[in-house]
Amino acid sequence: MQLGVIGLGRMGQIVVNRVLDAGHDVVAFDLSAEAVATAADAGAEPAESVEDLVERLGDGKRIWLMVPAGDAVDATLDELNPLVGEKDVVVDGGNSHFEESTRRAESVDAAYLDCGTSGGPAGAELGFSLMVGGPQWAYDEMTPVFDAVATGPNGHDRMGPAGSGHYVKMVHNGVEYALMQTYGEGFELLAEGRYDLDLEAVARTWNNGAVIRSWLLELCEEAFREEGTDLGDVADHVAGGSTGTWTVQEALEQEVPVPLIYQALSERFGSRAPESGRFSRRLANRLRYGFGRHEVAREE
Amino acid sequence: MQLGVIGLGRMGQIVVNRVLDAGHDVVAFDLSAEAVATAADAGAEPAESVEDLVERLGDGKRIWLMVPAGDAVDATLDELNPLVGEKDVVVDGGNSHFEESTRRAESVDAAYLDCGTSGGPAGAELGFSLMVGGPQWAYDEMTPVFDAVATGPNGHDRMGPAGSGHYVKMVHNGVEYALMQTYGEGFELLAEGRYDLDLEAVARTWNNGAVIRSWLLELCEEAFREEGTDLGDVADHVAGGSTGTWTVQEALEQEVPVPLIYQALSERFGSRAPESGRFSRRLANRLRYGFGRHEVAREE
Amino acid sequence: MQLGVIGLGRMGQIVVNRVLDAGHDVVAFDLSAEAVATAADAGAEPAESVEDLVERLGDGKRIWLMVPAGDAVDATLDELNPLVGEKDVVVDGGNSHFEESTRRAESVDAAYLDCGTSGGPAGAELGFSLMVGGPQWAYDEMTPVFDAVATGPNGHDRMGPAGSGHYVKMVHNGVEYALMQTYGEGFELLAEGRYDLDLEAVARTWNNGAVIRSWLLELCEEAFREEGTDLGDVADHVAGGSTGTWTVQEALEQEVPVPLIYQALSERFGSRAPESGRFSRRLANRLRYGFGRHEVAREE
Amino acid sequence: MQLGVIGLGRMGQIVVNRVLDAGHDVVAFDLSAEAVATAADAGAEPAESVEDLVERLGDGKRIWLMVPAGDAVDATLDELNPLVGEKDVVVDGGNSHFEESTRRAESVDAAYLDCGTSGGPAGAELGFSLMVGGPQWAYDEMTPVFDAVATGPNGHDRMGPAGSGHYVKMVHNGVEYALMQTYGEGFELLAEGRYDLDLEAVARTWNNGAVIRSWLLELCEEAFREEGTDLGDVADHVAGGSTGTWTVQEALEQEVPVPLIYQALSERFGSRAPESGRFSRRLANRLRYGFGRHEVAREE
Repeated sequence: MQLGVIGLGRMGQIVVNRVLDAGHDVVAFDLSAEAVATAADAGAEPAESVEDLVERLGDGKRIWLMVPAGDAVDATLDELNPLVGEKDVVVDGGNSHFEESTRRAESVDAAYLDCGTSGGPAGAELGFSLMVGGPQWAYDEMTPVFDAVATGPNGHDRMGPAGSGHYVKMVHNGVEYALMQTYGEGFELLAEGRYDLDLEAVARTWNNGAVIRSWLLELCEEAFREEGTDLGDVADHVAGGSTGTWTVQEALEQEVPVPLIYQALSERFGSRAPESGRFSRRLANRLRYGFGRHEVAREE
Repeated sequence: MQLGVIGLGRMGQIVVNRVLDAGHDVVAFDLSAEAVATAADAGAEPAESVEDLVERLGDGKRIWLMVPAGDAVDATLDELNPLVGEKDVVVDGGNSHFEESTRRAESVDAAYLDCGTSGGPAGAELGFSLMVGGPQWAYDEMTPVFDAVATGPNGHDRMGPAGSGHYVKMVHNGVEYALMQTYGEGFELLAEGRYDLDLEAVARTWNNGAVIRSWLLELCEEAFREEGTDLGDVADHVAGGSTGTWTVQEALEQEVPVPLIYQALSERFGSRAPESGRFSRRLANRLRYGFGRHEVAREE
Repeated sequence: MQLGVIGLGRMGQIVVNRVLDAGHDVVAFDLSAEAVATAADAGAEPAESVEDLVERLGDGKRIWLMVPAGDAVDATLDELNPLVGEKDVVVDGGNSHFEESTRRAESVDAAYLDCGTSGGPAGAELGFSLMVGGPQWAYDEMTPVFDAVATGPNGHDRMGPAGSGHYVKMVHNGVEYALMQTYGEGFELLAEGRYDLDLEAVARTWNNGAVIRSWLLELCEEAFREEGTDLGDVADHVAGGSTGTWTVQEALEQEVPVPLIYQALSERFGSRAPESGRFSRRLANRLRYGFGRHEVAREE
Repeated sequence: MQLGVIGLGRMGQIVVNRVLDAGHDVVAFDLSAEAVATAADAGAEPAESVEDLVERLGDGKRIWLMVPAGDAVDATLDELNPLVGEKDVVVDGGNSHFEESTRRAESVDAAYLDCGTSGGPAGAELGFSLMVGGPQWAYDEMTPVFDAVATGPNGHDRMGPAGSGHYVKMVHNGVEYALMQTYGEGFELLAEGRYDLDLEAVARTWNNGAVIRSWLLELCEEAFREEGTDLGDVADHVAGGSTGTWTVQEALEQEVPVPLIYQALSERFGSRAPESGRFSRRLANRLRYGFGRHEVAREE
């Protein structure tokens, strides 16, 4: 099987490598010539443009987009759309909003699959978890590629119609935020608590047989091993947040309570508060003076 | 009516003044001679010791304790108990834990009233809200004093048996924490939001007719007037927390969910995090590298 | 001064009455002839249509819309816009989303004031709190009307440019949700807790001098007086939620944490869960069997 | 090596079996003769009483208690203490509160190891995760037994001095509650959301390569497979909660914010609300009438 891959960043290169390793052919393009060269070194056929890539693919073109979510996807589709037809399949493997995917599925002439991809760069060897939305026939056609990119046949599935792949991935990420913050709360209590503990040892013991064992807990264990039990100079600053925000927005639309996911997102925002701190708490500080004449703590 | 007041700090002096203003007699004692002199200047009869104070009271002694919650109450009761009997009434007007009040009510020979007192020093002129627990007859006996210390007859009531006054006061304070933090969230959103607003004007407009008008909102208005719309150098550091902690502990015992009160308490703890920040968020920061190779923000 | 009022529901009639009581003239229109007749009985000049109303107003028309937020506002503006010019002022006193108000302010030829109105039908006698956004000159022109509709001069203010009035009102409502839920948590703990309490007496005592006194707490007192200390047959079902949802959505945009407001909104959603209950908790129930072989509670 | 096991419930039998399978000798006792017979069938030497069990052990007695946390542990220790000395080791493998374990460690003459055991009955084949507190020498002595009961050498570790094993286990359980509730929130949003999804397929796809894969997620997959994607008649009623309560109580003592863990615990309480529902929400329902004259939803 022959696959065109557009977008050869870290994740795109992993897709290329895993598909090549499975014995398929890959035509690869990226705006960066260097990235194309890397893919070519790995065995892919280099293309000089989107148009060139499409021409190098035979009938029934199979194209995987691994470009940053947002405008880059639309820009690529603008170029691609005149060159593809209803027998072709285009996969968006990035972190697009499901409503954008639904819109794109309607406007692209090829069959369009929105494919949520989880596992991160760390998943290069194991393979990814792929949540796919779109037409059944297109999903079936792409199965050999999905088998290669995912951990195997169980690592991918068709969730439902257009948008459902990115929808499930969005919720996955909301869950991810809250799992991370939950482990964080547990380790914070252990770090600040009554005993002088080796948190790497705690995480390792938990990862071997405890109810809460997980891949994220293995990453906690790795973090303590590499940074130390006090996490060294790792800052209280959590970046990111778009997919978690989408999850909460959708939960608001659906009127589904997600307080843990919200709280985890909220902690990220809190970690990025202005220099002066959280306004709400500054006001609470001052109000305690208002009614109780408690001394107001002030910045020096 | 004659009242003995033991404990002449800020709140104790207010009790003395309000009781004197209502035309009653006061005998006053404090470990600080200066505090006793202040009460005497206001018209109270000074006492030289707890024993002296008791002797100066006639039959049917009425004694108000306004000493710091905790050991000071027990120490005072140790002195007082041999000197009082079942016709006497002792009021604890401080912020004692309700279980301590229940215990004391059983061990003191006088009738014991636990009296939650809300309104703070700022309530000196208006009078306080008094939530009283203990025997009905003792509450009835003390009514003239409660009328004087409270805002009036509606500002005090017997909640129920021993401990119930401090119980209701404990819950009052838990509610107080969450109300403060709620106003804080609203003003934080306005301060960080889309418009350049005069928060004093917002608070004033709300205090005149809006659904959310309240005394705490009047204190917000005062805070913005005195500190500026950006709260100037008021720090993100909220002290205190014992009564809020008790409220959550009791809610755990009763299996009643109080997530807003818990969150408000939790924000106080968060405002007092170590220099390095919240461990939970530092771990989340590092985990994002673990699975996604996102750059780790580090302390400089 | 002469004011045209379009929309004569409960709130619109209150506006008519308060403006008439202040000695101004009112021209009133509503799609319901009955509502127009009610306003006429109160002393307003009845109009037969939006066009008729506009014709009855002299130069420098002053028009107050009190129609339901959403399409009704746009429909009214579609009719109104050809009939007004830059010297005229249109006020939207309803609960519109601030972004709609900003859009409308740009598309309407008259000066446009978005006016958040708080106080509810219960505020008919006291007057409302009015948060106004839009041009300063238009706000100044309308001041006599605002004085009449609000509690007085302190009950209204210009928050800032177009949209700011409804923005501040939106946040007001988010705060309102969390204040209500906070009082609810406190009374829930008292209701389920250790003492057999008269919650009306608790609320009354708090309303007289306690730190947490407020108008909402007066409404709690009223609720216990009218429904009983156990709230009788009042159901666990909280309707509404749109302005609270907007507040959380805006807080997500601004990356401001509002966990208490979110939680209060979330409780509303939770109170409207499907018959089978909250899915998240059903899954937790089942998972306890998964790892611990704890018996699964099942619907009968 | 020879081990005495007291308490032969589900977990105790698993300990017996795993220790026997590893080639060690076991003397077993339980108040239930039937349970002793089951252990004997598996190859253990039956004992008729605690005293008999102790006599059957040689010098340097090694005894594992697997009795219900609470009074049963103290009752067993009362019997055991006169029979053991400083060269003997007693392990408490149950879910005791860490402060009780600290107290017991001081009062028992033998070396005392508090051993948090995670993995549940489901861990019979894989082995458990064991978090051990107490003297180093005693932990070292017991290593062959821990190797057998745990998943292997990495499945157990000495956390620190007395109490630390049960302390870490307590926090483990708090984390467990929040992880369960987090997955629940995600699946609730998927169940109530825009697509008609097969939640078993979602869980399976996630378990193969996704960032959030975990053992609890495998149990979710199993739950959907066995109960159906709508969880059938599984009720919205989550039992249990003691270790989560302890975690929050300790976090209050340490002033560490754990809002996600608290929220998860709070959901359990909420799932067990009285027939009439959550009082806080009933009051909010009624307050909406108070200020806005919104209709009050009532029980039929």
